[in-house]
Amino acid sequence: MRIEKDALGTKQVPEFAYYGIHSLRARENFDVTSERLDVELINGLAQIKKAAALVNYEAGKLTKEKKAAITRACDEILDRQFDAHFIVPPIQGSAGTSINMNANEVIANRAIEWLGARKGDYCLVHPNDDVNKCQSTNDVFPSASKLALLQLTRLLSFEIEDLLSSLLRKADALENVIKLGRTQLQDALPTTVGSTFKAFAAALGRHLTEFTRSREALKTLNLGGTAIGTSVNASAYYVDHIVPKLSQLTGEDLWQADNLIDATQNVDAFVRLSHSYKLLSITLSKMANDLRLLSSGPQFGFNELSLPKKQAGSSIMPGKVNPVIPELVNQVAFQVIGYDTTITMAAEAGQLELNAFEPIIVRNLIVSTHLLQKTLHTFRVNCIDDIQANEERCLSQAENCSVLATALVPFIGYNKTCELVNHSMQTGIPIKTIVSEMPLAPANVLELLSPKKLVHLYDQRTMIN
Amino acid sequence: MRIEKDALGTKQVPEFAYYGIHSLRARENFDVTSERLDVELINGLAQIKKAAALVNYEAGKLTKEKKAAITRACDEILDRQFDAHFIVPPIQGSAGTSINMNANEVIANRAIEWLGARKGDYCLVHPNDDVNKCQSTNDVFPSASKLALLQLTRLLSFEIEDLLSSLLRKADALENVIKLGRTQLQDALPTTVGSTFKAFAAALGRHLTEFTRSREALKTLNLGGTAIGTSVNASAYYVDHIVPKLSQLTGEDLWQADNLIDATQNVDAFVRLSHSYKLLSITLSKMANDLRLLSSGPQFGFNELSLPKKQAGSSIMPGKVNPVIPELVNQVAFQVIGYDTTITMAAEAGQLELNAFEPIIVRNLIVSTHLLQKTLHTFRVNCIDDIQANEERCLSQAENCSVLATALVPFIGYNKTCELVNHSMQTGIPIKTIVSEMPLAPANVLELLSPKKLVHLYDQRTMIN
Amino acid sequence: MRIEKDALGTKQVPEFAYYGIHSLRARENFDVTSERLDVELINGLAQIKKAAALVNYEAGKLTKEKKAAITRACDEILDRQFDAHFIVPPIQGSAGTSINMNANEVIANRAIEWLGARKGDYCLVHPNDDVNKCQSTNDVFPSASKLALLQLTRLLSFEIEDLLSSLLRKADALENVIKLGRTQLQDALPTTVGSTFKAFAAALGRHLTEFTRSREALKTLNLGGTAIGTSVNASAYYVDHIVPKLSQLTGEDLWQADNLIDATQNVDAFVRLSHSYKLLSITLSKMANDLRLLSSGPQFGFNELSLPKKQAGSSIMPGKVNPVIPELVNQVAFQVIGYDTTITMAAEAGQLELNAFEPIIVRNLIVSTHLLQKTLHTFRVNCIDDIQANEERCLSQAENCSVLATALVPFIGYNKTCELVNHSMQTGIPIKTIVSEMPLAPANVLELLSPKKLVHLYDQRTMIN
Amino acid sequence: MRIEKDALGTKQVPEFAYYGIHSLRARENFDVTSERLDVELINGLAQIKKAAALVNYEAGKLTKEKKAAITRACDEILDRQFDAHFIVPPIQGSAGTSINMNANEVIANRAIEWLGARKGDYCLVHPNDDVNKCQSTNDVFPSASKLALLQLTRLLSFEIEDLLSSLLRKADALENVIKLGRTQLQDALPTTVGSTFKAFAAALGRHLTEFTRSREALKTLNLGGTAIGTSVNASAYYVDHIVPKLSQLTGEDLWQADNLIDATQNVDAFVRLSHSYKLLSITLSKMANDLRLLSSGPQFGFNELSLPKKQAGSSIMPGKVNPVIPELVNQVAFQVIGYDTTITMAAEAGQLELNAFEPIIVRNLIVSTHLLQKTLHTFRVNCIDDIQANEERCLSQAENCSVLATALVPFIGYNKTCELVNHSMQTGIPIKTIVSEMPLAPANVLELLSPKKLVHLYDQRTMIN
Repeated sequence: MRIEKDALGTKQVPEFAYYGIHSLRARENFDVTSERLDVELINGLAQIKKAAALVNYEAGKLTKEKKAAITRACDEILDRQFDAHFIVPPIQGSAGTSINMNANEVIANRAIEWLGARKGDYCLVHPNDDVNKCQSTNDVFPSASKLALLQLTRLLSFEIEDLLSSLLRKADALENVIKLGRTQLQDALPTTVGSTFKAFAAALGRHLTEFTRSREALKTLNLGGTAIGTSVNASAYYVDHIVPKLSQLTGEDLWQADNLIDATQNVDAFVRLSHSYKLLSITLSKMANDLRLLSSGPQFGFNELSLPKKQAGSSIMPGKVNPVIPELVNQVAFQVIGYDTTITMAAEAGQLELNAFEPIIVRNLIVSTHLLQKTLHTFRVNCIDDIQANEERCLSQAENCSVLATALVPFIGYNKTCELVNHSMQTGIPIKTIVSEMPLAPANVLELLSPKKLVHLYDQRTMIN
Repeated sequence: MRIEKDALGTKQVPEFAYYGIHSLRARENFDVTSERLDVELINGLAQIKKAAALVNYEAGKLTKEKKAAITRACDEILDRQFDAHFIVPPIQGSAGTSINMNANEVIANRAIEWLGARKGDYCLVHPNDDVNKCQSTNDVFPSASKLALLQLTRLLSFEIEDLLSSLLRKADALENVIKLGRTQLQDALPTTVGSTFKAFAAALGRHLTEFTRSREALKTLNLGGTAIGTSVNASAYYVDHIVPKLSQLTGEDLWQADNLIDATQNVDAFVRLSHSYKLLSITLSKMANDLRLLSSGPQFGFNELSLPKKQAGSSIMPGKVNPVIPELVNQVAFQVIGYDTTITMAAEAGQLELNAFEPIIVRNLIVSTHLLQKTLHTFRVNCIDDIQANEERCLSQAENCSVLATALVPFIGYNKTCELVNHSMQTGIPIKTIVSEMPLAPANVLELLSPKKLVHLYDQRTMIN
Repeated sequence: MRIEKDALGTKQVPEFAYYGIHSLRARENFDVTSERLDVELINGLAQIKKAAALVNYEAGKLTKEKKAAITRACDEILDRQFDAHFIVPPIQGSAGTSINMNANEVIANRAIEWLGARKGDYCLVHPNDDVNKCQSTNDVFPSASKLALLQLTRLLSFEIEDLLSSLLRKADALENVIKLGRTQLQDALPTTVGSTFKAFAAALGRHLTEFTRSREALKTLNLGGTAIGTSVNASAYYVDHIVPKLSQLTGEDLWQADNLIDATQNVDAFVRLSHSYKLLSITLSKMANDLRLLSSGPQFGFNELSLPKKQAGSSIMPGKVNPVIPELVNQVAFQVIGYDTTITMAAEAGQLELNAFEPIIVRNLIVSTHLLQKTLHTFRVNCIDDIQANEERCLSQAENCSVLATALVPFIGYNKTCELVNHSMQTGIPIKTIVSEMPLAPANVLELLSPKKLVHLYDQRTMIN
Repeated sequence: MRIEKDALGTKQVPEFAYYGIHSLRARENFDVTSERLDVELINGLAQIKKAAALVNYEAGKLTKEKKAAITRACDEILDRQFDAHFIVPPIQGSAGTSINMNANEVIANRAIEWLGARKGDYCLVHPNDDVNKCQSTNDVFPSASKLALLQLTRLLSFEIEDLLSSLLRKADALENVIKLGRTQLQDALPTTVGSTFKAFAAALGRHLTEFTRSREALKTLNLGGTAIGTSVNASAYYVDHIVPKLSQLTGEDLWQADNLIDATQNVDAFVRLSHSYKLLSITLSKMANDLRLLSSGPQFGFNELSLPKKQAGSSIMPGKVNPVIPELVNQVAFQVIGYDTTITMAAEAGQLELNAFEPIIVRNLIVSTHLLQKTLHTFRVNCIDDIQANEERCLSQAENCSVLATALVPFIGYNKTCELVNHSMQTGIPIKTIVSEMPLAPANVLELLSPKKLVHLYDQRTMIN
C-alpha cells in the first residue's frame, strides 16, 4: 500500500494500482453498480489526454520528457493494458470528474514509471497540473463521451445499413406475393409481402438519415473551454490546436464549438442522439409486432409469413416454436425508449453552467448503442434474412376477401357495394360469385376484383380510366 | 369598468366581473389555453371558503354579517351561478395562487353585494383578509383539488365496478366456449372464452383495490397549515375545526394531516392516484389489444370474438367494420400514461416547502379521471356487454390443434411427443389421427386430447392421476 | 328530425344538422371529452375535399354542378360557418374515419342545399361517392392533419424566432455584467449574464433548426394512396394532380410521398415533430429553472436577476412575488414531454397497413403546438424582455469568490492553490488578500484574479501566454 | 465436445458444459448484452426445481434416485457452484423459456453425473420430462422472478428503514435550527431544519408502506398453472403441494394464485413494484434537489446546510467540493423512472394468455432493486448522516426576512402589510425597525415577528388568540 493525499486527507492505495486517491474515493462513494466504464470511453479519454500533451508540448508548456511519458501511457491505455485500473463506475455523481480524474491518475502514475520513479510520486507528473493541463472535466468528459459514441455509432450505422439492405432484398424476393392488407386489424384491400418489407425499409431509411444527422452533432466538441467554457487556464495555442490535433489522432472530422459556454452547459447533442434511437426503436418494435402477428398460429393465426425457427419454443409444449427474435427486438426497443425517459429527465435537470447528470446520459447512450447494434444484427441474421412467405395461403385469402368489392364503388356506389358485401358475409357466398351474377356488372368486373390488378393499380390504371 | 389596485399598480376590471385584479392579471399572464377550471374544483374552493367562514365566525374572528355574506356567495357558486367568473386557466404558474385568488375575489365581490355595496369595495369584505382568512394557497389549493378528485373519482369507481360486473357476466355467459389459447401469439393449449374475461376481471379487480386505496389518500388534507404548513395566521380554533367542518359540509370523511409541513410540500397522494390510473390503463390497453386481435379478420384473422358493430368502418371500403371502441380505449390509456409522465416530472421538480407545479398535476388528474370514467362507460356499454363468441370456430380450432399433443408428454415424453407434432405439422395429418394409430397409446388417449378435459383439467384431474 | 340510414340501420338526425348518421354515431361512441376538433384541422379537411372535387372534375369524374356545390361548401367551412357541425371528438377510435366522414357529411349536405334539395338527399351528392371520391381516411386524415400542423407550426416558428431575438437582445444588453458561474450548484469561475442568455439562445437556435426540419417533413402527403396506399379507386389523373392542386390552393409547397404504402402506415413524421417539441421543452424547462434559481430570494437566495413582477405572489404573504411565468414554462414543458410519451406509445402500437391511433397523435401535436406557441409568447413578453440583472451584487460576488484562485494553478500548481483556497474558506480571509501577500506571487497576480479578465480570457490570452 | 439434439437439429456442446443445446442456441440468438442472470434469479429457479422434484417424488411421479440427484444438483446451484453455466442473457425473447431451460439443462446434466453417467445422457434425467415435470416456463419464470425479488427487496426494505431512521435522527438533532422557508424559490415564512428532515421522513415513511404492500404481492405465485394456467400435465397432488413446499424450502410465506390463468397472463404485481420504486425515486430526487440547493455556494448560494465532503470536486478548480452523493441519487432516480417506462410498455404489450416480455420487466426490476438499495446506502452513510446545518446563517436569515411581516396581517390587514414589506424592500430598512416605529403597533409586535414563535405557532397559539 502507498499513501496518497488530497485536500480531504490521506488514503491507502494498493501498490499495484495505477489509479489514485480520487478514483478510490469515487469508487467508494458511488458503489452502486458492478458496471465498468466502456472501453471506448476509456479510449476517448486517452486520445484527449494524448492530444493535450502533444499540444501543450508544442506550446512550450510541457517538457519533452513529460510529453513522451504521458503519450506512451495513453498509447498503452489504447492498447487495452490498463482497463482494470479504470475503477470508477459509469453511474456516478461528480458530473464526470471522477471519470476524468481516473484517467488523469492512471496516466500520471504510468508516466511516472516511464520516468523511472514509483507510482504516487506526483511531483514528476501530476494528474491535475500535467495530465489535465488546459483541461477541465467540463470539456473532457463530454468530449471523451462523444469520441466513444462516434466509434460505437459507426458500428451501429453499419448494422442499420445492413438491415436496410436485407429488408430491400426481402422486398424484392417477395414482391409478387400477393396478400391481404389489414387496417385496424380488419381485412382490407390486397397488397404484397414485398410492399410490407419495402414499407419497413422506407421508414428505416428515413431513420438512418436522422440518425446520421444526430451522429454528426457528436463531432462538435467543447475542448478548450475548460471550466464552464471560458477557457480559464488554457493557453491560446492550446485552445486553437487541441481539436485539430484530436482530429488528426482519431481520424474523425472534429470541430470546436463556436460558443464554448453554450457547449459546456447544454447537452442537446446527446438528447438528439437519444431521440434518433427512440425513433428507430418505435419502428423496430412496430416491425417486430407485425412479424409476430403475420407469423401467428401457425395453425390458427395469420400464418402468412414463416419466421426461421431458432430454438425450441416451450419447456412443456413440444413442437411449439416462438418468434423469439422479434420478441427480443420489442424488448430492446422498450429498453431504449426507457433510457430516453432517463436521458430526458437528466437533460432537463441541468443547471446553470453545467449539466451535472451527464454521466447517466452518456452511460445510457452507450448501452443503447450497443444494444441496438447487436439487436439489429441478430434481427437481420436470425430473422429477416430467412423469413418466408406462405404464398398460397396469402394469395388465396386475398382472392377470397369480400373487401375486393371496394373496386366496384366507382361503378355502383358505396351503398350498393355495401349491400353486396354484407350479403356475401351473411350468406357465405363469395363476393365474386355474387358480382358475376349481377345484371349490370361491367364487362371486366371480375378483372376489377383481381388482387393482382389491385395491388399494382396505379401502374395499370389506364385500364380503369 | 372599475379600477382595482394591488401592490403592482392598478387595472381596469369590467363592472360586471366578480373576479378582480389578481384573476385578470393571471389570465393575461397564463393565456396559453382555452381550458376552464373544472366545476368540481370550483366547488372544492367554495366548500373550503364556506367552511372557513363558518369556523372563523365560531372563533369570533369574523362578523356574523360577513359570515352570512360569504357563505351565501359560496352557496351560489355551488349552485353554478358564477362559473363564468372563474377565468384563470388550469395550467398556470403561481402554484395555484391564482386559482385561490380567483375564488377569493369572486366570493368577496358577491359578498360585498350581499352587504349592499358595489363590487370592488373590499373594505367591506376583503379577498385576503376575510375570504382567505386563516388560509394560504399552500393549503387551499391542494385541499380543493382533493375535494374535486374525491367527487370525480367516485364516479370513476362506479364505472370500474360496473365494468367489472360486466366482465364477470360475460365470463359466465361464455364460460363453456372452448377456444385455443396462445402464448407469444403461437397456438398453445385450449382455454375458454370465459377464462379470458375472468382474467380481465381479476386484474381489474386488483386495480380497483389499488385505486380505492389511492383514493383514500385524497381524504387527508393540509388545511390549517396555511403557508408552508406552520399554521401562521391561523387561529388555534380554526386549525382544530376547519377539517371537521369541511367533513360535515361535504359529507366526506376527511382528515387533517399529522405533519402539515410534509403535507404541504409533498404531492405523493396525487402521484399515487396517477399510478393507479397508469396501472388501470395498462390493463385496459391490454384488454383492448386482445379484443382487437381476437376479433380480427373477420374473414382472415382470428375471428373468435365478434364485437358489436358501432359504426361504418371505412369511408372507402364498404361493409368494413372496425373495433373502434377498443381503439378508443387504447388511445385513452396512452393518454393517461402520458399524463403520468407529466405528473412524475412535476412531482420530482417540487422544491423545498412547496411544489410549485401542482396546477399541472391537478389538471392532468382531473382530465384523466374524466377520460377514464367516460371511456370505461363506452367500453362497457358499446363493446363488452355485446361481445359474442364464434363458438363453432373456437371449438373447431381447439380440437384440431397439434398442441393438444402436449397432454401425451407425461406418457411418452417430450421428445417423442415433439416428433409426433412435427410429423403432424409437416404432413398435415391431424394429431388425433396420428395418436390414435400409435401402437402404445394409452387407452384413453383420445380423451386425453380432448380440449374439454384440458381446460378443466385441475377439476377433473382424478382421471389422469 | 330526418332519418338517415347506413349499413347498421337508421338513426334520427336533427333537421338543422349538416352532419349525418356517421358523425352522430361517432359522437355517441366516443363521448369521452368535450374537446372539439381544431379549426385548422377542419380547414385541412375542407382544403383537401375542395382540391379533390376540382381534380375529379378536371378528370371528368365529377359533374360541374357537383363540383361547384362541393367547393362552395368547402369555402363556407373555411369561412368558419360550419364549425358547430364538426361534432366528432378529436380523441376517437376509427383511425380518423369519423373525422373524415364528418367532413364528408357536412360538405355533402351543404352541397345538396346548394343544388336545391334538402339535407339528407344523398342521391344528389353522396358523402362517400362524391365528396370522398378517390380518397380514403387513410390518406385524408393524416394529410389534413399535416396541413393543420403546417399552419399552426408556422405561428410557433415565429414565436421561437421572436424568443431567440429577445434572448440575443438581452444577451447584448447584459454582456458586460460579470457574475459568478456555478457548476453542480457550487461556486465556479466567473462568467457574464450576457453569456447566460447567449447560451440559452444558442441552444434555442439549434432547436429551431431541428424544428424547421421536422416541419418540412409535414409537407410530404400520402394523398392519392387511398386505402392502404395502393391507390385503389383513385383515377390516374387524380393521383397525379391532387397534391399539386392542394399546393396551389393552400400556398404550401407540398409533395406526394414516393412510397404511398409506407406513407400510409408509418407515422414517423409526426413522431419527429413531437421529438422536436420535446427537445425544445427540455431547454425551455432548463431555462425556466435557471431563471427561477438566479432570481431566488430575493433577500436570501441567488438574487442575481430580477424577473418582472407580474402579479401578487401569495394570498397570505404580502409583498411576495413569484416567478410565475417560468413556472408556467416548466409545466408546459412537462406537459409536452408527457404528450410525447403518449405519441410514442401510439406510434409503436401501429399495426400492419395503418396506424389506428393517429387521432391521439394528431390531437396531442395540435395541443402541444398551441401550448408551446402561446407559452413562448408569454415567456418572452412577460418575462425575458424585462429581466434585469442586479449588477452590483453579481460583480461583488464574482470578485470575492475563492474560486478565482483557479487562475493561479498554472503558476503554483493545483495542490498549492488548493491549500490557499481552503485557508481562505476556513479563515474568511479573502483570497485576494492571501494571494497578494504570497512571497512568490507573479507580478500580475491580482490582475490574474480579476473576473473581468477571466470571463474574456480567450480574447485577452496574449497576457497570460 | 458432445453432440446434443433437439427438434431443430444437432449442435456441439462443450464437454465441460452443464448447460445444453437450448441454452446454447439462446445465447447465440440473444447475444446482445454481456449481462448475466442475477444470482437470486438462479436461486429462485433452483428452489422451484428442488421443490418440484420433492413434490413429484411424494406424488409417486419421480423415482427416489432422480429426486435425490435433482435436489442435490439444485443444492449445488444454491451453493454458487454452477453460476458460470447459466449462460443465457437476462434480456431475451422466449418469455423466459430459455432461462427456465438453462436451469433444466444444468440440473439435468448435474443430476445425470450424480447418477453415474455422463452429461448429455438425458435418458437418465431429462430436462423437460424430469426437471421441468409439472411445470411450464409460464409458471416457473414469473415465480422464480418473484422469489428473486423477494430476496432483493428484503435488503432494499432494510435500507429504506435505515434511511428513515437516519432522517428522523437528523430531524431530532436539528429540530431547533430555525431557517427561512421558501415557496416557489422565494423567501417565505420561517421553518426549521428539523422540519425539513421530518418532511423527508414522512414522505419516505409512506413510500415504505406502499413498497411493503407491493412486495407482498410478490408472494402470490402461479406455480401449478403450467402452460397458460390450466394446469395441463400437472398432477393434482403437485398443484396442491408445490407452493406450500416452496414456502417451506424458502421460508417465505407464499400463496398460490386463486385464478391461475389470470396470474399467468397479467403482470401487474411487477408493475406495482415498479410503481413503488417510481414513487420512491420521485421523493429521493426531490430530497437530493433540496439538499443540493440548500448547500449551494458555499460562498454565494443558499449555504444553509453543509454536506459532508466526500471527494475533491474539480479537476481544475482547487478546493471546490461538489454534492456528489445527491447527484448520484438524482441520476439513479431518473434511471429507475426510465426503467418504469420500459416496464410500462412491456406490460401493456402483453397479449392473450402470456406476457412474452416478462424478461425485460424482471431484468429491470432486479437492476432497479440493486441500484436503489445501494444508492440508499451511500446516500445515508456518505451524506445524510453527516449533514450539518449552518445555524447562525440560518437563524440570521430567518430573523431578517421581510416575510415575517406576514404575522401582522391579522392585525393590520393584507394591503397595509404589503405596503410595509415593499417599503422595507425598497429602502433596505429592516422590517422590524419599520414595525417597531409604527404608531399603532400591538404591544407584542416584535414578539409576533419572532421566527422562533412562528415556527412553533400552532403549539404556542394561545399567545395570539
